Amino acid sequence: MTRPASTATQSKPGPSERELLSVAASIRPTDPSGEHAARTRLDQLTKPPGSLGRLEDIAAQVARVQGLEKPSVARKVVLLMAGDHGVVAEGITPYPQDVTWQMVANIVSGGAAICQIAASVGADLRVYDVGVARDITLPGVVARKVAYGTRNMAVEPAMTREECAEAVLTGIHAARDAAADGYTLIATGEMGIGNSTAAAALTAAYTGADAGAVAGPGTGLSKEGVARKARILRDTLALHATADLDALGKLAAVGGLEIAALAGVLLGSAEQGICVVSDGFISGSATLAAVALCPVVAEYVFASHLSAEPGHPIMLAHLGMQPLLDLDMRLGEGTGAALAMAVIDAACRCLSNMATFSEAGVSSGNA
Amino acid sequence: MTRPASTATQSKPGPSERELLSVAASIRPTDPSGEHAARTRLDQLTKPPGSLGRLEDIAAQVARVQGLEKPSVARKVVLLMAGDHGVVAEGITPYPQDVTWQMVANIVSGGAAICQIAASVGADLRVYDVGVARDITLPGVVARKVAYGTRNMAVEPAMTREECAEAVLTGIHAARDAAADGYTLIATGEMGIGNSTAAAALTAAYTGADAGAVAGPGTGLSKEGVARKARILRDTLALHATADLDALGKLAAVGGLEIAALAGVLLGSAEQGICVVSDGFISGSATLAAVALCPVVAEYVFASHLSAEPGHPIMLAHLGMQPLLDLDMRLGEGTGAALAMAVIDAACRCLSNMATFSEAGVSSGNA
Repeated sequence: MTRPASTATQSKPGPSERELLSVAASIRPTDPSGEHAARTRLDQLTKPPGSLGRLEDIAAQVARVQGLEKPSVARKVVLLMAGDHGVVAEGITPYPQDVTWQMVANIVSGGAAICQIAASVGADLRVYDVGVARDITLPGVVARKVAYGTRNMAVEPAMTREECAEAVLTGIHAARDAAADGYTLIATGEMGIGNSTAAAALTAAYTGADAGAVAGPGTGLSKEGVARKARILRDTLALHATADLDALGKLAAVGGLEIAALAGVLLGSAEQGICVVSDGFISGSATLAAVALCPVVAEYVFASHLSAEPGHPIMLAHLGMQPLLDLDMRLGEGTGAALAMAVIDAACRCLSNMATFSEAGVSSGNA
Repeated sequence: MTRPASTATQSKPGPSERELLSVAASIRPTDPSGEHAARTRLDQLTKPPGSLGRLEDIAAQVARVQGLEKPSVARKVVLLMAGDHGVVAEGITPYPQDVTWQMVANIVSGGAAICQIAASVGADLRVYDVGVARDITLPGVVARKVAYGTRNMAVEPAMTREECAEAVLTGIHAARDAAADGYTLIATGEMGIGNSTAAAALTAAYTGADAGAVAGPGTGLSKEGVARKARILRDTLALHATADLDALGKLAAVGGLEIAALAGVLLGSAEQGICVVSDGFISGSATLAAVALCPVVAEYVFASHLSAEPGHPIMLAHLGMQPLLDLDMRLGEGTGAALAMAVIDAACRCLSNMATFSEAGVSSGNA
């Protein structure tokens, strides 16, 4: 196998890459004093100490991100990035590529699962075309197309470094826009036929896991289909020698435009001091990329749910993140992330709005 | 040890017990055709088949209860029952008994965890005094006092059968009132210092588990405190020979007024054809009682979360229920049940409001 001529390892960064590196360098660690104040308050609230379990840790993490004793995530938005994947030419998905734009249309007209789940938790939804393979001019779709889908990573790099950096910047700008509009909690969502193959490749590239361990059924491959997907992944990872690439090089070689944009959403959320909820396996691959580009981003992220996709536990273990929900979901679109927003909101409301023992005149225990 | 003179095994049912038995006999099984229609629809919605995971099973169960292809749980209420426990005389809790009424006051003034979590999921909250040890006249507390707390079950039966049946009827009426007011999803909540001891005794009585396996820290007992609680439980179960008692006899001997009322909420919800979400360990003991009184009730119940209390998995295994959430919570009040309402709502909205492949013009897969 000959390594293709690739810009994935070019030595001189282009303008988008330089801007991306500058954003990554600007992201600050979260504020331990916010967490300390929150934990002190949690122990004074009218409940047995620790009895809210993980809700207390969640609230403390938000307090740390917001630098506040009484944080709030009242204004929620799902940022959904759509893009196509050249690797569908390898036959790694049971759905035709047209389903990407068809589902984008379904999402902006309210028919998709994410519309219902976002509405159920009181979250708004913003849909971006960063790489759909055909022109889309629909009300409700933010046009930010970087390319008409990625190239087939089984043959050549999915993106150039500059294309990839441009897609990341698109996500950074989406997060900045959300911050400017007053949102206090962001969830990641995606749509892109073929993107579980890219997510699996990224998981292998960033964690060192074997292709066979990260290849899963995606939207519904048969056992034979999964085995074939694993073979294609193994060859693709070898083709690009992903182990030798830097963080952006990996994302460019085997990622996706929507995945790169979501990595940007994570970077931009951290830059803006906003907590961000990562969805399942596809969004998780964006989290791997964002944390590889800037490790401190992890302090801003909640892993929403444990996907049924087999590579997801590998990804979460690498990130050191424990998911909030485990409901056997494997749909993507941001559905798990949106649902987990309800848990984070409940946690913050308890921390910020419950009465203390002294405020309520309740006798504290002798435990 | 002499068995006390007890009305827990009296042969002639009183009027409340007769009414309770009549309600239990009237409860009908859920509707398989509703579930069938829902599952058919779920497979036509714009998502890979089965990709919403447990949300699909949840929605199908609601469809079965409501007998509808497109169910809704838009109107939610937490029914919170408060009562005191004579067994606190044995020193089985780190909080004084006064905390029961103090927390009831805190709940109706909005300072407790359940107020925040109910608000976060859009649920209303109704608070009932069914057995608080002192008079409460606070706006927002529904006065349905059956007794000023239970008797000390370590010495005598906690309730007579008639008192217990009366408390159950209180819960049935609360569920009927909720149904009449248009609520479509009910959650159970409770407040009662000492009630983890009653819940543990009921778990042992209904499941046959050993007292040592079901005694837990409750609101925060030390290891020594838990061991002492287990000894008291073992003696109490032997005193009443709970293994020989019928379903109502067990509840009367070692239950609580608020637990009996919650058993009534479960029976009443089933009678009214409404899904009911059971909270953690204390509410779970009410679920054991309700299912013992009328097994078909189980078809209407969701187990909301896995409590950190050690007896909870034993209870759930006996009921054959899998909790929706696992967040290490152990607060009670209905907090886990209220939070799980968000999951059930999301599931029903997906089932009822998503577009089908043909409606949305999305190509279906060849999986």
